[in-house]
Amino acid sequence: MRSALYTGNSTIVVEDRPPVPPAAGEVQIDVAYTGICGTDLHILHGHMDHRVRVPQTIGHEMSGRIAAVGAGVTDLAAGTPVTVMPLRWCGTCPACRAGHQHICQRLDFIGIDSVGAMQQRWTVPADVVVPLPAGLPLTHGALVEPTAVAVHDVRRSGLGAGETAVVIGGGPIGVLIALVARSVDADVVLVEVDAQRREIAGQLGIRTLDPAVDDLAGEVAAMTGDAGAAVAFEVSGSAAGIATAVELLAVRGRLVVVGIHSQPREIDVFRFFWRELTMIGARVYQRADYDTAIELLSAGRVGAETLITHVEPLTNTAEAFARLRGGGNVMKVLIDCQETS
Amino acid sequence: MRSALYTGNSTIVVEDRPPVPPAAGEVQIDVAYTGICGTDLHILHGHMDHRVRVPQTIGHEMSGRIAAVGAGVTDLAAGTPVTVMPLRWCGTCPACRAGHQHICQRLDFIGIDSVGAMQQRWTVPADVVVPLPAGLPLTHGALVEPTAVAVHDVRRSGLGAGETAVVIGGGPIGVLIALVARSVDADVVLVEVDAQRREIAGQLGIRTLDPAVDDLAGEVAAMTGDAGAAVAFEVSGSAAGIATAVELLAVRGRLVVVGIHSQPREIDVFRFFWRELTMIGARVYQRADYDTAIELLSAGRVGAETLITHVEPLTNTAEAFARLRGGGNVMKVLIDCQETS
Repeated sequence: MRSALYTGNSTIVVEDRPPVPPAAGEVQIDVAYTGICGTDLHILHGHMDHRVRVPQTIGHEMSGRIAAVGAGVTDLAAGTPVTVMPLRWCGTCPACRAGHQHICQRLDFIGIDSVGAMQQRWTVPADVVVPLPAGLPLTHGALVEPTAVAVHDVRRSGLGAGETAVVIGGGPIGVLIALVARSVDADVVLVEVDAQRREIAGQLGIRTLDPAVDDLAGEVAAMTGDAGAAVAFEVSGSAAGIATAVELLAVRGRLVVVGIHSQPREIDVFRFFWRELTMIGARVYQRADYDTAIELLSAGRVGAETLITHVEPLTNTAEAFARLRGGGNVMKVLIDCQETS
Repeated sequence: MRSALYTGNSTIVVEDRPPVPPAAGEVQIDVAYTGICGTDLHILHGHMDHRVRVPQTIGHEMSGRIAAVGAGVTDLAAGTPVTVMPLRWCGTCPACRAGHQHICQRLDFIGIDSVGAMQQRWTVPADVVVPLPAGLPLTHGALVEPTAVAVHDVRRSGLGAGETAVVIGGGPIGVLIALVARSVDADVVLVEVDAQRREIAGQLGIRTLDPAVDDLAGEVAAMTGDAGAAVAFEVSGSAAGIATAVELLAVRGRLVVVGIHSQPREIDVFRFFWRELTMIGARVYQRADYDTAIELLSAGRVGAETLITHVEPLTNTAEAFARLRGGGNVMKVLIDCQETS
């Protein structure tokens, strides 16, 4: 079978590799589609070489059908459409003992810390496999994982109907957060510097602002009767994104930290005191977030057709990464891993 | 009557002033004791001259007895022991409309933004007057306001029984937070640089650590089975205090910002993401916090006798400020405002 491998030095190669048969408690999946995540781009750029053992197949946003099950797997059968919740926790660290297994202090994030889904057949532990509804297109199934991220972020925020949410950063996760926020009947505005990303978000009916041109504070004041936003999602990973979020929040507003900040950020702590603001870190997802993500995708509330701007065959994985890196009119890029492709 | 006035230029003078008779809806109080707050020191140092109109009587931590009531005040009577919750809100700003009147965007903090309690007779709106139990010594009654701050901080943290709380900064508010945290059956440790303040906290049965000597991370790890603290209260107002709090928190830990940070602080935002931490601003109090504070003081759970290290007559207000500013074996200084003193 073919497998795309990150080999270091910003290089992806596609090679023939023997598929791994499922051992006891494992499931082998015929991968249909694997999405390229921002984290995969970080891996390609070498930022995560301390976690990735080259050469390694990466990828963790996926869909497929079960090809075979190992001994002892009785609740899953060949042919079932599935995705994977790519988290394996230790069960014994303080985070696990406190019930926060999804952010286990020894977490194995499958596709980063161990072998991922950018290959034709992928073998994983049975307990990370999540069945998909038969009616959900497998292209859409590959969006369950990033949608679950957005569901988790919105859930952590406590966002409610009628509240105003500002999303700062309009890549796939930012747009998904905006859509999930809309699904709970919040008023949503997305702040994004890139005109083509604003255009795609606009096609999904999301109101957008350009921070280079628009008066963000004035627009949010007009939306909220001068109160400010109840919730801001910082998805840009930038210092300006944090500062903007803090500025736009209402009294008792909540800032959810979604983006990766590679260095400490200066934060107006006095304003947190003065307005009783809250800053909330949000990472990955829990199983309930997966269930909600599948429901939203099945109900057509995530705009999957619009979000998936490109589908590339597995043999062109390196080119697909280059396309995403190049920006422009690109949102979500899927790798088609099917044997027939 | 005598009144202590801040006149600018780091100066407090005590002068004879005519008492203000209570107008309709007002109450005149024979002040018994007024505590000196850290905020009063900031006022003396000129840091709050944009809010204080000199010459002005300041002071907002107090106790006394009602001297007279104005027209229309039917639920309060002369002789009743009282304190004051010194907040007046507008009722119409976005914070008030959202139910957060205590942090009204046009808040009048009585004793800062308007005339305070460092005088023999003080006239205030009836709706800020809070009756005290007959059995509570009026010296202890002057601690209701700072105790309510601590109650509010602990309530905002969500601290529960069996959780570990680290309090960073061992002035009066830090010690009160430690005591309130203990009252909810949390495991508490107080981090304080000053040996004499650690000594006073120790007399109250609070475990203390010296950040210059002790291995804070190791001590907290030992207390928590390597998990880290569930809650950290940052009461020092220092950059180091914020950094230490973030370092000591467990996965899903909560950092409560209590101290005043006069400049932005560099914060490890990635750690907020990675550990799903929360930072919570907490300012002043709500009426329920006053009620809890009165209960705790009445039950003798706040160590008022130990916390009140000095009581000075009103004529010596300037000296009392100097004593507090000088540090040393000083925790809470009360001004005795009684006519007989």
